[in-house]
Amino acid sequence: MSTPAFILTRPQMGENIGASARAMLNFGCDRMRIVAPRDGWPNPKAVAMASGAGRVLDGASVYGDLPGAVADCDYIFATTARPRGLTKTVVTPERAMAQARALMGEGKKVGVLFGPERAGLENEDIALANAIISVPVNPDFASLNLAQCVLLVAYEWGRQTSSVSPEVVDMAKTDWAGQVEVEALARHYEDRLDDAQFFFPPEKADGMKIVLRNMWSRMPLTRADVQMLHGILRQMVRWKERG
Amino acid sequence: MSTPAFILTRPQMGENIGASARAMLNFGCDRMRIVAPRDGWPNPKAVAMASGAGRVLDGASVYGDLPGAVADCDYIFATTARPRGLTKTVVTPERAMAQARALMGEGKKVGVLFGPERAGLENEDIALANAIISVPVNPDFASLNLAQCVLLVAYEWGRQTSSVSPEVVDMAKTDWAGQVEVEALARHYEDRLDDAQFFFPPEKADGMKIVLRNMWSRMPLTRADVQMLHGILRQMVRWKERG
Repeated sequence: MSTPAFILTRPQMGENIGASARAMLNFGCDRMRIVAPRDGWPNPKAVAMASGAGRVLDGASVYGDLPGAVADCDYIFATTARPRGLTKTVVTPERAMAQARALMGEGKKVGVLFGPERAGLENEDIALANAIISVPVNPDFASLNLAQCVLLVAYEWGRQTSSVSPEVVDMAKTDWAGQVEVEALARHYEDRLDDAQFFFPPEKADGMKIVLRNMWSRMPLTRADVQMLHGILRQMVRWKERG
Repeated sequence: MSTPAFILTRPQMGENIGASARAMLNFGCDRMRIVAPRDGWPNPKAVAMASGAGRVLDGASVYGDLPGAVADCDYIFATTARPRGLTKTVVTPERAMAQARALMGEGKKVGVLFGPERAGLENEDIALANAIISVPVNPDFASLNLAQCVLLVAYEWGRQTSSVSPEVVDMAKTDWAGQVEVEALARHYEDRLDDAQFFFPPEKADGMKIVLRNMWSRMPLTRADVQMLHGILRQMVRWKERG
């Protein structure tokens, strides 16, 4: 699937254009458009900041005005930090990227507008958009800069299109221990702890053994864990035998 | 509900501590812990960068080592950018903050570890954690810095605990037009466009009127829109009458 166009509108500092390119590429978004950059284009500070994301800048299209930049878009979101006195739908980044994904799945082109650092988008810009994206920040402290806003929108796009499983276990060259291995471990401990008179007093021994067995079966043991636990016990026995 | 503790482990640059405080506070997270900051504490550069989020730094606790910083935590997440060769559960920020929310709802304390800028957390740090948070970045380009990683975790916390509706319409001092108002608008246009011989040829007039009525009812018109559309039509009539 293609990715939305991130349209930086009258950006001021080259560093922020470069940081936006990095933020985008972190989540696989590589379609940047730049409208009337204050310091012209190309901008060496943008290139320096973009570092490994230089290809996003290389592929960026530059436009003289916003209507030109959005002419081929079927649906346009405008990011704003504050209410604008315009009657328009306001969505979270999450909802916006869900809508973008659905639209792009139908072959539509989606653009997301980001305003200049100092003041954000003008109402004239926002009037071109179909909906507003507002990040639900703390009303008592809202300080997202341009690249952070780009990062959060790109993150939402990536999150919703990612095939990464929300939870996996990184296995470090081992596998889960099978039932046979856990059983052998439990028996090893039971036998040596019997030798060591751990299960005391005798009338409580059976109950203690059940608690211990239950502990082994409750733990998510790997084969490496089982080997280590055998080794610990063997070493304790050796240490005892050395007297 | 309380918020997770954001535990900056051996952070290097004060600017990044300050930027992390801002990133946290954007999403209402204000519990910071700092472990062995390279340049000591307090750090004027952190204060300067934190700006309006200075109260997060004022409230931060400073620890000499990580075990001390996490001693009261019931569950610990460690953020890492790369696989560590440790057998451990790896979750997305989304899943992690869902778990954190559930745990904190039970009165448990949750900590999230963030490593030093240059190299991230050591395996020794990660061994203290119950699970790993890995942001699902583009495998071909992963360049999140400390404050960006803090921002994304704080964003996920805020997103999942936010009461902000995913979609609202900002109404700009107006309300939706009622059926009576839309009907009056439709009749006004129909009458004047009849006068102007817009519905031509006559055998198509009824069909054209239905299409026009359908357009009005399809549009999400506010009362302000309806007034403007009446005004447009009246002005066109006046202009015509002036000859």
